[in-house]
Amino acid sequence: MSWYADEGLVGIRRDLHRHAEAGWKEFRTTALVAEELERLGYDVALGPDAVVPEKRLGLPSDDVLAAAEDRAREAGAPEAYLERMDGITGAVATRSFGDGPVVGVRVDMDALERDESRADDHRPAAEGFASVNPGEMHACGHDAHTAIGIGIAREFADADGTDEGFDGTLKLFFQPSEEGGRGGLPMSETDHLDDVDLLVALHVGLDEETGTVVTAYEHPLSNAKLDVEFSGAPAHAGGAPNEGRNALQAASTAITNLYGIPRHGDGVTRVNVGMVESSNAQNVISERATLRVEVRGGTADLNEYMLSHARRIVDGAASMHDVDVGTSLYGKTTTFEADDEAATLVAEAAAGLDAVTEVRPRKEFGGSEDASYLIRRVQESGGIATYVGIGASNVAGHHTAEFDIDEESMRIGVDTVVEALRSF
Amino acid sequence: MSWYADEGLVGIRRDLHRHAEAGWKEFRTTALVAEELERLGYDVALGPDAVVPEKRLGLPSDDVLAAAEDRAREAGAPEAYLERMDGITGAVATRSFGDGPVVGVRVDMDALERDESRADDHRPAAEGFASVNPGEMHACGHDAHTAIGIGIAREFADADGTDEGFDGTLKLFFQPSEEGGRGGLPMSETDHLDDVDLLVALHVGLDEETGTVVTAYEHPLSNAKLDVEFSGAPAHAGGAPNEGRNALQAASTAITNLYGIPRHGDGVTRVNVGMVESSNAQNVISERATLRVEVRGGTADLNEYMLSHARRIVDGAASMHDVDVGTSLYGKTTTFEADDEAATLVAEAAAGLDAVTEVRPRKEFGGSEDASYLIRRVQESGGIATYVGIGASNVAGHHTAEFDIDEESMRIGVDTVVEALRSF
Amino acid sequence: MSWYADEGLVGIRRDLHRHAEAGWKEFRTTALVAEELERLGYDVALGPDAVVPEKRLGLPSDDVLAAAEDRAREAGAPEAYLERMDGITGAVATRSFGDGPVVGVRVDMDALERDESRADDHRPAAEGFASVNPGEMHACGHDAHTAIGIGIAREFADADGTDEGFDGTLKLFFQPSEEGGRGGLPMSETDHLDDVDLLVALHVGLDEETGTVVTAYEHPLSNAKLDVEFSGAPAHAGGAPNEGRNALQAASTAITNLYGIPRHGDGVTRVNVGMVESSNAQNVISERATLRVEVRGGTADLNEYMLSHARRIVDGAASMHDVDVGTSLYGKTTTFEADDEAATLVAEAAAGLDAVTEVRPRKEFGGSEDASYLIRRVQESGGIATYVGIGASNVAGHHTAEFDIDEESMRIGVDTVVEALRSF
Amino acid sequence: MSWYADEGLVGIRRDLHRHAEAGWKEFRTTALVAEELERLGYDVALGPDAVVPEKRLGLPSDDVLAAAEDRAREAGAPEAYLERMDGITGAVATRSFGDGPVVGVRVDMDALERDESRADDHRPAAEGFASVNPGEMHACGHDAHTAIGIGIAREFADADGTDEGFDGTLKLFFQPSEEGGRGGLPMSETDHLDDVDLLVALHVGLDEETGTVVTAYEHPLSNAKLDVEFSGAPAHAGGAPNEGRNALQAASTAITNLYGIPRHGDGVTRVNVGMVESSNAQNVISERATLRVEVRGGTADLNEYMLSHARRIVDGAASMHDVDVGTSLYGKTTTFEADDEAATLVAEAAAGLDAVTEVRPRKEFGGSEDASYLIRRVQESGGIATYVGIGASNVAGHHTAEFDIDEESMRIGVDTVVEALRSF
Repeated sequence: MSWYADEGLVGIRRDLHRHAEAGWKEFRTTALVAEELERLGYDVALGPDAVVPEKRLGLPSDDVLAAAEDRAREAGAPEAYLERMDGITGAVATRSFGDGPVVGVRVDMDALERDESRADDHRPAAEGFASVNPGEMHACGHDAHTAIGIGIAREFADADGTDEGFDGTLKLFFQPSEEGGRGGLPMSETDHLDDVDLLVALHVGLDEETGTVVTAYEHPLSNAKLDVEFSGAPAHAGGAPNEGRNALQAASTAITNLYGIPRHGDGVTRVNVGMVESSNAQNVISERATLRVEVRGGTADLNEYMLSHARRIVDGAASMHDVDVGTSLYGKTTTFEADDEAATLVAEAAAGLDAVTEVRPRKEFGGSEDASYLIRRVQESGGIATYVGIGASNVAGHHTAEFDIDEESMRIGVDTVVEALRSF
Repeated sequence: MSWYADEGLVGIRRDLHRHAEAGWKEFRTTALVAEELERLGYDVALGPDAVVPEKRLGLPSDDVLAAAEDRAREAGAPEAYLERMDGITGAVATRSFGDGPVVGVRVDMDALERDESRADDHRPAAEGFASVNPGEMHACGHDAHTAIGIGIAREFADADGTDEGFDGTLKLFFQPSEEGGRGGLPMSETDHLDDVDLLVALHVGLDEETGTVVTAYEHPLSNAKLDVEFSGAPAHAGGAPNEGRNALQAASTAITNLYGIPRHGDGVTRVNVGMVESSNAQNVISERATLRVEVRGGTADLNEYMLSHARRIVDGAASMHDVDVGTSLYGKTTTFEADDEAATLVAEAAAGLDAVTEVRPRKEFGGSEDASYLIRRVQESGGIATYVGIGASNVAGHHTAEFDIDEESMRIGVDTVVEALRSF
Repeated sequence: MSWYADEGLVGIRRDLHRHAEAGWKEFRTTALVAEELERLGYDVALGPDAVVPEKRLGLPSDDVLAAAEDRAREAGAPEAYLERMDGITGAVATRSFGDGPVVGVRVDMDALERDESRADDHRPAAEGFASVNPGEMHACGHDAHTAIGIGIAREFADADGTDEGFDGTLKLFFQPSEEGGRGGLPMSETDHLDDVDLLVALHVGLDEETGTVVTAYEHPLSNAKLDVEFSGAPAHAGGAPNEGRNALQAASTAITNLYGIPRHGDGVTRVNVGMVESSNAQNVISERATLRVEVRGGTADLNEYMLSHARRIVDGAASMHDVDVGTSLYGKTTTFEADDEAATLVAEAAAGLDAVTEVRPRKEFGGSEDASYLIRRVQESGGIATYVGIGASNVAGHHTAEFDIDEESMRIGVDTVVEALRSF
Repeated sequence: MSWYADEGLVGIRRDLHRHAEAGWKEFRTTALVAEELERLGYDVALGPDAVVPEKRLGLPSDDVLAAAEDRAREAGAPEAYLERMDGITGAVATRSFGDGPVVGVRVDMDALERDESRADDHRPAAEGFASVNPGEMHACGHDAHTAIGIGIAREFADADGTDEGFDGTLKLFFQPSEEGGRGGLPMSETDHLDDVDLLVALHVGLDEETGTVVTAYEHPLSNAKLDVEFSGAPAHAGGAPNEGRNALQAASTAITNLYGIPRHGDGVTRVNVGMVESSNAQNVISERATLRVEVRGGTADLNEYMLSHARRIVDGAASMHDVDVGTSLYGKTTTFEADDEAATLVAEAAAGLDAVTEVRPRKEFGGSEDASYLIRRVQESGGIATYVGIGASNVAGHHTAEFDIDEESMRIGVDTVVEALRSF
């Protein structure tokens, strides 16, 4: 018997919202999704079979992961699934209904690392499904995405294992760790995408009202997040400042010069240092300093240009001050163009739904998205893809403490995608 | 009845060690010292009568202070004394024995902000008097100083309120918050020092063995600690970096330029930035960045030179990046020369003690000390002063987690100072 | 009798090439143009009547200007015209042929500040018309532009002062000091442009072959060039570095931070520091440091954004190091869109010429152009304008020492513009 | 016959003053000194025999040296001596008078690179011996030093080749290129100093009045001057800033960080960047940038500490911005202590002279001096040395355009040194 067997889209979404799990910590989410999908007759690849483990980016420490798994266990994640996941979140569910084309849907499952509002006028708080996990909140709608994924799976799979009007194979990609761009790359490097002929990714909200469907978001900025740690040697700043190797001098020089990476003649570039930390007493030469850097580019090449400059700058700053430096990629996304044919399928599907009042064509994405890696993998293998926007009249902006999703949008999301896939 | 009435030097010191209280949190220490000193017949000025409240530097938040006071209360600090302190630590105890000169002793009472070792070979841990307050530890010997202060008070004051061989007035300055140089200035600005003819400050250890007395440490570097906070405006680093006012760019520019304050032809200068913090997501322009800066100078003028340059640099960096900047002085010390006459008194006193095996003359202090403010105040009023080193064969260096004091040194400290004062 | 009366386009262009005069030094050019235009029956406004004197940017020193005027005098510039110019170059020639519309043509006259090749295969050197003025060379084709301007004037003005097929007023703007964007602004701020209904600016070459006409270059980057001088105080770097106020520390900090001006979400921005100079002995703290800064923006607003940030950064750097800073605008340009109607006129005119083999539509300008100020002034007053490219199969790139113009292009330039103006 | 045969000290000094030759350009000076010394019976080692050619620092270009040699030839330098010098300046003159000790005198010969005042109240101008070489001036008194060297040679050498009261060997070191510390090192690395038992170096003026003799200046700061050239790649700052490799960004980062080399706990350090140059149009990414850096240390070790940090910083800055960097040592000095015995000899010699009114003991040197290398070489070989100050009531400070030497001081210089050497 599955936890979600008797729950509708709203019930599932609210349960996920209440148990918000941030990137790489989606143990309960993955386990319950897998349990329900297997109940529906899908084969489910889990954890190390759903993402390439060593390609995971921005991984929390082992302690943090173990605590998250324990938390999931206590909150009802079935042990059998946790065991199969082997400490790694993410799932790919597959079911074949005939010899037709292979179609895929990608949804993301992770919450944001932020606290949720407890105000009375915040519905999740008022109705008791606000996040019970401090510092983790579904403030971007991925809870709805996951519910939509389950809803799509249900539409295709009736009790006797056939699906009217669809004779192909359906693959559902439940991607972990989208925030920061950490889970898309390792999922894209499995071979699950190689035979996908049509991939649809989706997002609710994005400032569109309920009833609007955007057939093809595209051109997100490519993005890379680089964690940097400078390590020097402490010394007494009064007695022997010369004996120190000052990690903070290196960090400051790096920051100033990172912002000065030359603009590029070919298009948009961005650079930012969001976080810096160096904690010593005032009279101690700084032994350690950490930075969190982000670069972006209008194309993947521009992003690589920025990333390679950023790496050279932190290396040069370290060598200048005789300190060591280590870097690790926290996250990375690329960019994509949606395919006309895929967008048209969505447009026609949406136009046929009563609940849809407006169908919008291609739109620039603005931010960054690691569905980009999955989409490009499909396109490189000869398939087509699009990234669909499902309007939702939300009460507050994405990523805020008051974010909540118009739950009507979920039904529209399920129906639009199901129709598009069936008509392929 | 006083808590310490039946305790000897070792007992008092161990009790203080166990209840280590860091700067401006010495509520229990001050209260128990005051209780014992009043039992001995001294008049005790407390809190706002012992330091000028608005001159206190590097003050913790009100919440932190209130919690420290509660902790003291629970650990036995008498309520009557806490009330008189009115939230402010520090005490000056005075007793007159005749019309002779006014002599003073300054000891400091605060612990360091660090954890104490729990290792079996660390005597305070093994014998049960390691600090019960996490993050606070007597790792510099101020527990011994406070005990020595009480010991000196006892030597002068016998039961009937007279003191053989001394017909003047004794003042004992139990100074709070020496670490960081935060309590010396506000205590020096009371009028308790105006009539002091001879002031002796003292420190145990300082890499000298038990049995050694240094008659006059002098020339500590002047020191100022400046807290700096840059405040700008956040913005999305991908969408509209131009809308941010980047506190971190200001901070980085400030740091790089602080280290470049011109060296001074007149003597030694120092500058360091120990702590930096700016915490934003990688994709958010930094709204806030804080620094903890320290400058030093071989003279008070050189220190002022460094401090005024540091202030100008952080202001310029803020204006360059259109952010606001606030600064506050976390701590400040000055420098001094010991008086020959005072040093000679100590030398003769120490030479007469069996436990003293070596008497050393003047020595450079090396670090910084805010007893400097009290000493200069006495000297400016026509008195003389010295800063005495009481050797102690300690097992580990000052400020380490394994620091422990050779308790034999306390007796030598009491006897040396008492003899010097009596012979004045 | 006019110097150029009997010269054709080639003869005029070669004479101008030989006597190349850089920005604000076009005394001989202006005087000879004015003399010829008055011979042809035009009214000529000169110097202070052709540009607003106090709006001139990037002006050389008085000494340099006086020397340039003397040089012009010795090379045949008629004294009467030099007197009327009153030390200021530039001319606006006007002639009315009836009550029809007012049409204008803008050409620029200044040479580049660079040496010309003396190689045998460089035609101007081989045929004796290479620049006689060291460090000044017509390496961008403005000599041809000026000759074309005279050619157009001749086409309209026959001996009896009427012009078949044109019954309006013709204004010819001979603009000084285009290089660096220094002369466009002050000419645009006269009232000569207020009644212009159609303005055509033109450029030869720009990597197009002879026979090609580009009907409308547009969207040049807005540009501002800022000269910066930091002034501090010298001091002996060994004896008393503290007594210096280090102009070079300010300059270095400014440079590093200029490159770090935040990228802008609305479009392209650029910043560069081309020149830095600070000349002191190694043992002297730098008293003075000069920078030449350039910023650009995809729009005039983006350019202002960059310029205001640049100003704030140099101010902040100065204040940080306690030095003075002075800035002056060396040059400035804005951007424009060409008008469809004007481009169409040019397209039709060009299409009718045998010598024209290809007519190209709108093209992005790439660089910067201060004709932008004149074009915007016309557009703001209700007129229309375009910036025409006259292809020229040149042997070497613009701004190189070997640049030479395919002189055939001049005839095409004259004919295209004359036809476009007549058909308006 | 020698050019200087019939000239006294004043005549020689004024002739040298008139033909001021800056570092490594002392062709005329060296040749005329050598001619006169050989006339007096000394053996003279010249050029490559007086300095180790490949150890010369801060060498001008070959063109500059060739022009200086031509200039010397035209101003009377005998061809035979120029030939022996083989393009290298400097001379060591030796004469033996018996089997006694070897005594040495070091004087420097080079002028400063600066213009001389032409004011009527500047005696050299008024009396016709101001420098005829623009940009070169004896503004530090080395002309007097050279004359004193000749004067000493004359005192020892009478017509018949014997010297009353002295039976040892006299070596006179006429050192080139003292300014900047460029000639001391290469002269010290010859073997001429190995057998010197007593070396006296001397300087006139140094803010002491005529009649004062300082027996031992010592402890000059060690000094190193580093020329740095960053080489990147140009690019159009508007079109493709990314294609540049910005030498100026590297240089600015280097400068800012050079000033931030950590102060040293062991003593005085200094750093300065005197000269920076990068010359490009405002719209070109800087291809090349040059710096002239100077570091100092209170000891030779502290100087090496600064120099090695400076090298690492310029390397790191280059690597950070992907540009190349080359460095060359422009000059270098070390430090020394004067020997008591040598100082005493000078003190006794000076005390015996009527013209000497005050004899001062040891004094800190303040600046830097490359006689330090010669002195240390002698001391390392077992000899003794001192650096003598010969007071001179000069009208203006060293290194100014109005500097002139009180010529009375030369006689005192000769007599003091001769007496000290004879009494050894």
